[in-house]
Amino acid sequence: MQAELIAVGTELLDLGRRDTNSEWLTERLSRSGVRVVGRALVDDDEERIAGHLRSAVARADWVIVCGGLGPTGDDRTREAVACALDLPLERDPGMEAELRARFEARGFPFDARQARQADRPRGAVWLANPIGSAAGFLVEAVGARVAVLPGVPAELKTIYSGSLAPLFGEGEAPVRRVLKVAGRPESWVDRRVRDLYAMPRGRVTVLSGAEGVEVALQVETAKELDAVESTVTERLGDDLFGRDDDTLAGVTGSLLEAQGMTVATAESCTAGLLAGAITSVPGSTAWFRGGVVAYADEIKIENIGVMRATLECHGAVSAEVARELAAGVRKILGSDFGIGITGIAGPSGGTAEKPVGLVHIAVDSDPGCAERVVWLPGDRDLIRRRAVTAALDLLRRQLLGSR
Amino acid sequence: MQAELIAVGTELLDLGRRDTNSEWLTERLSRSGVRVVGRALVDDDEERIAGHLRSAVARADWVIVCGGLGPTGDDRTREAVACALDLPLERDPGMEAELRARFEARGFPFDARQARQADRPRGAVWLANPIGSAAGFLVEAVGARVAVLPGVPAELKTIYSGSLAPLFGEGEAPVRRVLKVAGRPESWVDRRVRDLYAMPRGRVTVLSGAEGVEVALQVETAKELDAVESTVTERLGDDLFGRDDDTLAGVTGSLLEAQGMTVATAESCTAGLLAGAITSVPGSTAWFRGGVVAYADEIKIENIGVMRATLECHGAVSAEVARELAAGVRKILGSDFGIGITGIAGPSGGTAEKPVGLVHIAVDSDPGCAERVVWLPGDRDLIRRRAVTAALDLLRRQLLGSR
Repeated sequence: MQAELIAVGTELLDLGRRDTNSEWLTERLSRSGVRVVGRALVDDDEERIAGHLRSAVARADWVIVCGGLGPTGDDRTREAVACALDLPLERDPGMEAELRARFEARGFPFDARQARQADRPRGAVWLANPIGSAAGFLVEAVGARVAVLPGVPAELKTIYSGSLAPLFGEGEAPVRRVLKVAGRPESWVDRRVRDLYAMPRGRVTVLSGAEGVEVALQVETAKELDAVESTVTERLGDDLFGRDDDTLAGVTGSLLEAQGMTVATAESCTAGLLAGAITSVPGSTAWFRGGVVAYADEIKIENIGVMRATLECHGAVSAEVARELAAGVRKILGSDFGIGITGIAGPSGGTAEKPVGLVHIAVDSDPGCAERVVWLPGDRDLIRRRAVTAALDLLRRQLLGSR
Repeated sequence: MQAELIAVGTELLDLGRRDTNSEWLTERLSRSGVRVVGRALVDDDEERIAGHLRSAVARADWVIVCGGLGPTGDDRTREAVACALDLPLERDPGMEAELRARFEARGFPFDARQARQADRPRGAVWLANPIGSAAGFLVEAVGARVAVLPGVPAELKTIYSGSLAPLFGEGEAPVRRVLKVAGRPESWVDRRVRDLYAMPRGRVTVLSGAEGVEVALQVETAKELDAVESTVTERLGDDLFGRDDDTLAGVTGSLLEAQGMTVATAESCTAGLLAGAITSVPGSTAWFRGGVVAYADEIKIENIGVMRATLECHGAVSAEVARELAAGVRKILGSDFGIGITGIAGPSGGTAEKPVGLVHIAVDSDPGCAERVVWLPGDRDLIRRRAVTAALDLLRRQLLGSR
């Protein structure tokens, strides 16, 4: 079963506002096996609300509209729903009497504006609102059912739980897992799993971010999840570093801890972000010694022991300097692993030979020095975050090898 | 002028995801006087994308569609746009050759999947993407113009700023401004501006984040904006560090550069994130020397010169250790300013006397040492980011004083 949500309210389009009603409904619907396939935010404009609703009912089994049911002039949802579904709006005398009684009991005036809350499209069924004055309503459209709820979060939740959730039953929720890949581009992962996109009863999505590539699996049952997860796991092998809430820094930290090893960092272009990522994990003091941010060349030489000749001969962005940074910081800070990073984060400073995005990484340890050179896409921020991911992944693969 | 936004991606409907692209576009469009009157999120379903687009072009002057332009099988936006606007999808041989050349230069395979990124609806104009492979495009529909952009945030922003913003005539009549405050809590700012919330023809919003507190002003005319901005500026004084796209690291860096000064960092709890923030600014090599991440106490002693007696007597999280970190790193790395940070980022390690969130910061320079102690709210990540903000702000205030 598929649903679309429409949240109404000019203020929802303001900067910094979150549409928390739709987030809450998405979660509750997914628990009942109803998949939200579209969400819209629309301002308090009757025609636009009607336009969104008209197109949503043509696509989904259920449409839930939230907000714009109150008594003020900019509350236009009732009228918009009636217009979109081509139904007359009618006042329900029973509801009007009930509202009048509620208001009078509290000593509030009950005027024509309040009375509008007793209007509903012909054929609609009220959804009782025990904690507020605007009731919701349910109405059948051609091909879809439309539920209309007030936008006040507490009222929306009460009405949903009391009147709508029972209609959806306790269907088994879709089962979901995210598998996480580092050190491989999105296209590489795509080639390995693309035949699964056409899976009949589930969904496989590949998503790329600065922390790596994610493969999201969504199926109907736990058994199906096990099957598709083991297929993907087998195909991706060690390129998979974790799942769901795992982070690359967390997984790498656990490997260090399990092997009783420590690490130290010497960073040029990432300038502390690698150390920051490693220590994002609580308890990282057990495996992280510290680091040097060697931005100026003098610091690479004087504080880490990179040779001036190496800098002059190969340039600051070179495999040789990455190697000397890694070995140098390992020695100075007394750790089992040393990581060196040097690269060109841009936006300026690139050349034809050494373009923006070129990053050299080295991981030094007793068995020797592992190296990786990458040419990373993106702006300054993305290049630096991707360089951190590449460095953590190189360390992780060294730790897997030494297991 | 009115715009609607359509963000494409099944993952955007996942729980806990924010549609940051639409938030960013809403803000940028509002600066050009274009009002966003509707936003939709839709999964990677070609028919549903087309359905949303068809109804949006009937309502708005502009429709901006983001996401689903990549090479993988679930990227269906090109096809959906062509279908919705009833235009054939055509491959552009020039774009295909350009993409092929880019891929081959990096040694990546260029296959049929990648070539799809050279497809566009007939009559569409490419919007150049200098930092990624999927270009955007602009196409005329009946009654509206449709811009289609990739969903990768950095690429979307680059293309918008480079190719779309000029069409809207950005900067002509600014009716919106964000003023940025550091070093003060939200409640402090709120008390100083709350009488402005009731302003008849505008809106003042206070928003708190890890980078400080923002005061957003939205009014009808440039003249009104000047008036309310100068009121707020006068009330907040030096607590304001910048406006709109200014960052605290950028503003602080500019002050350092203007005074010909340099800085170095010695970080414990933030472990490199302060150095990372300082170097997020292009050209920071002019004012940033480098830093030491002194996570283990031995490193504080051996590599920065904190006295063992200070650590034993006052503990690692103390004003005294922050001061010795600042003075030590300044001396070792030869900078004009040295910043020391030590604190308890949690989740464990707090005591009644030194709770989680307690952070000591010191900025050492020729005239002496400035200090700040803060008790920061939030989880480990927020505490560390807020500590970076507090440290940058302390340095900024020193630089303002020495102006």
